[in-house]
Amino acid sequence: MSENPPRTVFFISDGTGITAETLGHSLLAQFPNSGLRQVRIPFVDDLDKALDAARQIREARAADGVRPIVFSTLVNPHPESGLRDVDALFVDLFEQFIVPLEAELGQRSTHTVGRFHGIAESQDYKARIEAINFAMSHDDGISTDGELADADVILVGVSRSGKTPTSLYLAMQFGVKAANYPLIPEDFERNKLPGELHRHRGKLFGLTIAPERLSQIRQERRPNSRYAAIENCRFEIEAAQKLMRRENIPWLDSTTKSIEEISATILQAVRLNKPAY
Amino acid sequence: MSENPPRTVFFISDGTGITAETLGHSLLAQFPNSGLRQVRIPFVDDLDKALDAARQIREARAADGVRPIVFSTLVNPHPESGLRDVDALFVDLFEQFIVPLEAELGQRSTHTVGRFHGIAESQDYKARIEAINFAMSHDDGISTDGELADADVILVGVSRSGKTPTSLYLAMQFGVKAANYPLIPEDFERNKLPGELHRHRGKLFGLTIAPERLSQIRQERRPNSRYAAIENCRFEIEAAQKLMRRENIPWLDSTTKSIEEISATILQAVRLNKPAY
Repeated sequence: MSENPPRTVFFISDGTGITAETLGHSLLAQFPNSGLRQVRIPFVDDLDKALDAARQIREARAADGVRPIVFSTLVNPHPESGLRDVDALFVDLFEQFIVPLEAELGQRSTHTVGRFHGIAESQDYKARIEAINFAMSHDDGISTDGELADADVILVGVSRSGKTPTSLYLAMQFGVKAANYPLIPEDFERNKLPGELHRHRGKLFGLTIAPERLSQIRQERRPNSRYAAIENCRFEIEAAQKLMRRENIPWLDSTTKSIEEISATILQAVRLNKPAY
Repeated sequence: MSENPPRTVFFISDGTGITAETLGHSLLAQFPNSGLRQVRIPFVDDLDKALDAARQIREARAADGVRPIVFSTLVNPHPESGLRDVDALFVDLFEQFIVPLEAELGQRSTHTVGRFHGIAESQDYKARIEAINFAMSHDDGISTDGELADADVILVGVSRSGKTPTSLYLAMQFGVKAANYPLIPEDFERNKLPGELHRHRGKLFGLTIAPERLSQIRQERRPNSRYAAIENCRFEIEAAQKLMRRENIPWLDSTTKSIEEISATILQAVRLNKPAY
């Protein structure tokens, strides 16, 4: 629940609004529980639409009783619309960032030239889509040796320790190909890794989690099962940590970490610095 | 291939560097093929690490022959390290954004208080993880009526038209629960939707794609199959479009669009304005 008065945040763009929204989101993620209501106003590409956006912001100001926050990537905010004069914290991402980057790179932005489409054809974008498909088809250990050779990183850990969302985030955000290998009772009994993982041990990264949290997550999936029972979760986590220590696999505890944090730590650990853009 | 000289971009943070990197990525996505090499320097939380970061930037400047670009979310850039005096385009995200937002919201950022962890416990974050799990378990039409009732949006389209990456992006970025329903020959023969989709028609959004592109994507998956043959792709796309028109489902052509653009259009179409943060 919010401790602050309700407040509206606007994402305004002459295009899809994705840049405004992505930037706005990663900044606002710094202020959890700030009780913001978000409104997207994409495709503001003429004076009428700018006038309408200005009207919506003024109405939110009046209704909330506090200033809205506006993230804008408008190339042309149509000064005569009054959009820049509303009573709001107006964050002009175009002026503050895109203009200096254009000067530095000696290149106009796709936003300026109205060709956001370019992204779908870039190498970086294709790598991301390929990595997403890779993560989807190599979730839960369904991988051959040849496919593991193709992975940038292989996440190991017990079921529900956070491998799947982390591998999808690594793919979507960084274009990193992450495969999963779930540790199961057979691995604990052997107390060593299967041969195919041994051949790729430089790519392994382990995730562990507090048994109480694991039990809670598994309860939601299979209530009152042996799978979710706290004793079983304790046993699996202990066995998994013992195995990871024995095999010298770097690992972290995901209990109170976000997928963003987990992913950053993994990228550092396996030293993945891919070329970008 | 890059048309520009190689240039280095740094993401520097006293934390995980995720905010710096996310912001930097969405800005640099505006400059495709700009040939940037990226280097992450997270956890710069003392003078020694700041000195080391400054050294790395100076070395890149000398090696590349052009100024590096630096995205920083450092709360304290340690002036005596010389980090702020290097010959680079230094984008100080903390000063430019986080400080004004702290003043506006009357709340310190998790970054300032060194508690990025807070995110993992926020409602918004939990909704995202839940939506990712939802997308994973409802990929490729494996949904009951009750589960479809729980979806925010249901994507329909032929196999490989872009439903899966789009539903994952909607989940990860916006916490939107997206289910998939792949259109198959039986649907075309009947030329109408299955009953369970009818009950949720307000949530339906269709994806289509150019037959040539579809054939190319399917070739990579199943070379020389009937599935990938251009005639079959033409038939499926034509039948799918006819069905979507008949059923009055809003749809778009994903051929040259990025998942960011597709997602933005879907959110507009189904009018999803979820509360944020």
